Amino acid sequence: MTETDARALVERITALPGYTSSVGTRVLIAMPGNVELALDKREDLLQANGYFHGGVIAALADHAAGAAATTSADDGYAVTITLTMSYLLPAAGDTLVARAKTLRSGRISTCEVEVSVLGAGKAERCATGLVTLRTVSRSPQDMPAARATGQDISEPG
Amino acid sequence: MTETDARALVERITALPGYTSSVGTRVLIAMPGNVELALDKREDLLQANGYFHGGVIAALADHAAGAAATTSADDGYAVTITLTMSYLLPAAGDTLVARAKTLRSGRISTCEVEVSVLGAGKAERCATGLVTLRTVSRSPQDMPAARATGQDISEPG
Amino acid sequence: MTETDARALVERITALPGYTSSVGTRVLIAMPGNVELALDKREDLLQANGYFHGGVIAALADHAAGAAATTSADDGYAVTITLTMSYLLPAAGDTLVARAKTLRSGRISTCEVEVSVLGAGKAERCATGLVTLRTVSRSPQDMPAARATGQDISEPG
Amino acid sequence: MTETDARALVERITALPGYTSSVGTRVLIAMPGNVELALDKREDLLQANGYFHGGVIAALADHAAGAAATTSADDGYAVTITLTMSYLLPAAGDTLVARAKTLRSGRISTCEVEVSVLGAGKAERCATGLVTLRTVSRSPQDMPAARATGQDISEPG
Repeated sequence: MTETDARALVERITALPGYTSSVGTRVLIAMPGNVELALDKREDLLQANGYFHGGVIAALADHAAGAAATTSADDGYAVTITLTMSYLLPAAGDTLVARAKTLRSGRISTCEVEVSVLGAGKAERCATGLVTLRTVSRSPQDMPAARATGQDISEPG
Repeated sequence: MTETDARALVERITALPGYTSSVGTRVLIAMPGNVELALDKREDLLQANGYFHGGVIAALADHAAGAAATTSADDGYAVTITLTMSYLLPAAGDTLVARAKTLRSGRISTCEVEVSVLGAGKAERCATGLVTLRTVSRSPQDMPAARATGQDISEPG
Repeated sequence: MTETDARALVERITALPGYTSSVGTRVLIAMPGNVELALDKREDLLQANGYFHGGVIAALADHAAGAAATTSADDGYAVTITLTMSYLLPAAGDTLVARAKTLRSGRISTCEVEVSVLGAGKAERCATGLVTLRTVSRSPQDMPAARATGQDISEPG
Repeated sequence: MTETDARALVERITALPGYTSSVGTRVLIAMPGNVELALDKREDLLQANGYFHGGVIAALADHAAGAAATTSADDGYAVTITLTMSYLLPAAGDTLVARAKTLRSGRISTCEVEVSVLGAGKAERCATGLVTLRTVSRSPQDMPAARATGQDISEPG
């Protein structure tokens, strides 16, 4: 996949209706196997103590990994099998940035994800993730159509 | 902690402003060390294919584990150190239910979480999680106050 | 797979030359999707403090999961993609027992594993694991032959 | 901790009686928070297909993480709470090398570990790990004494 195609693909899957677009996920970098996403602070993305919620951090890491794995696969679309997040610091800041890198690509892909939080003029790594995905054959641009027709596009197997 | 206190505590921390209350998390069961939460389908909680988003599933599992660990600790408040989710089936249905059970309690707690999806008259286990937490000494009812004063209530260390 | 076939298969793969047989792994139960293995204390399986080594616990859980996933698959042989272990207590005792249960079976399988340590007349759960595996098409009885001929039987992809 | 002290400490805990020394673990690099260990091929460390066993890889990663976390802590001894391994390639080769790096240090530490396999003139990353540890106050040189007296040096809590 070319860099231009990778960027277009990641922009498209990030803008599809659903959780990822509704929280305001932004694409910073999208190259085959390397994707960087950002998410800005919003009241409904925080824990009660004012830090980004761990689940919101996991969701951003998951989408970054899915984008990195999908752009490094020859075709098809990567869906998550397992996700491990390790939380290093409270995510206190204005913006989360998740950088996913594909370590292995194929029918099964593995990505590592660094999550940093930006604020008060500095960036700190607040979490790290390890995501394993499998590639389903349908291409991501078919998702909304598949959804409309009730076809199952991510049945494990 | 009595069952009555556990229920009140879990209701309180689930209703605090932030991600968990804004998505509509409901408390089904809250006993010391055993917590069951529900989350109903909403467009902004889904992936583009119409299933619940993996990050939303992780966030529900995380909050259930935090509640289970907090109610089984003598005092203090449990914050997540690591979270592993294994996704078994696409979460196609109307409601997610996460059942967290504390396996070990103390300064470090470990919970296992089963996540099911309900719909079309049946319930299916769609994910399973393993969550490790540490107990911070401040009690959860102090969280909004700590936040107002900028005190750090979950500094790792 | 019948129970008789499952037992024979698990006995066979546990006795093949290598780590698993050399440490003395014993098969207690082997039914399709449910496998229980035991490992007795030996000086070279411990940490310096006298407890079973965490890696030895992980290896036993891994083999139990591989056996459970292989016996619940229609054919082929399950190899591990990811392994998460959560250690609950020091594994102080005479014998480790790992019970693996397949939660999902197919091209990708997921198993949960409970590990207990037996000693001084009691059994305590000392660790819990979550293992994800993929099925490779070659059957396990072909492994030694594949090895002899240098064929790669577990290439990811 | 100075580099000299770190090296001496890691050499000492790697040579203590038990699994780690019995399999022949070698210390390549030991600086505070950065430890690199090697393990050479031996029949009893392999799977039936001739690759290094996944549990042996996990054990090497675990010891490297424990050494990295212990040398980056002010005092005390790091014991593993959770371990996640992601297997990227069959570990076909003559020597495993695990490089652990501490991402966060304190009462709770987090390390990432890269595992490579060397052979036929090349090195390939075959696994990656994420390890969370807690620091117990007793120093590692006291371990054999503690063991002799039956004191529990790694009770969770």
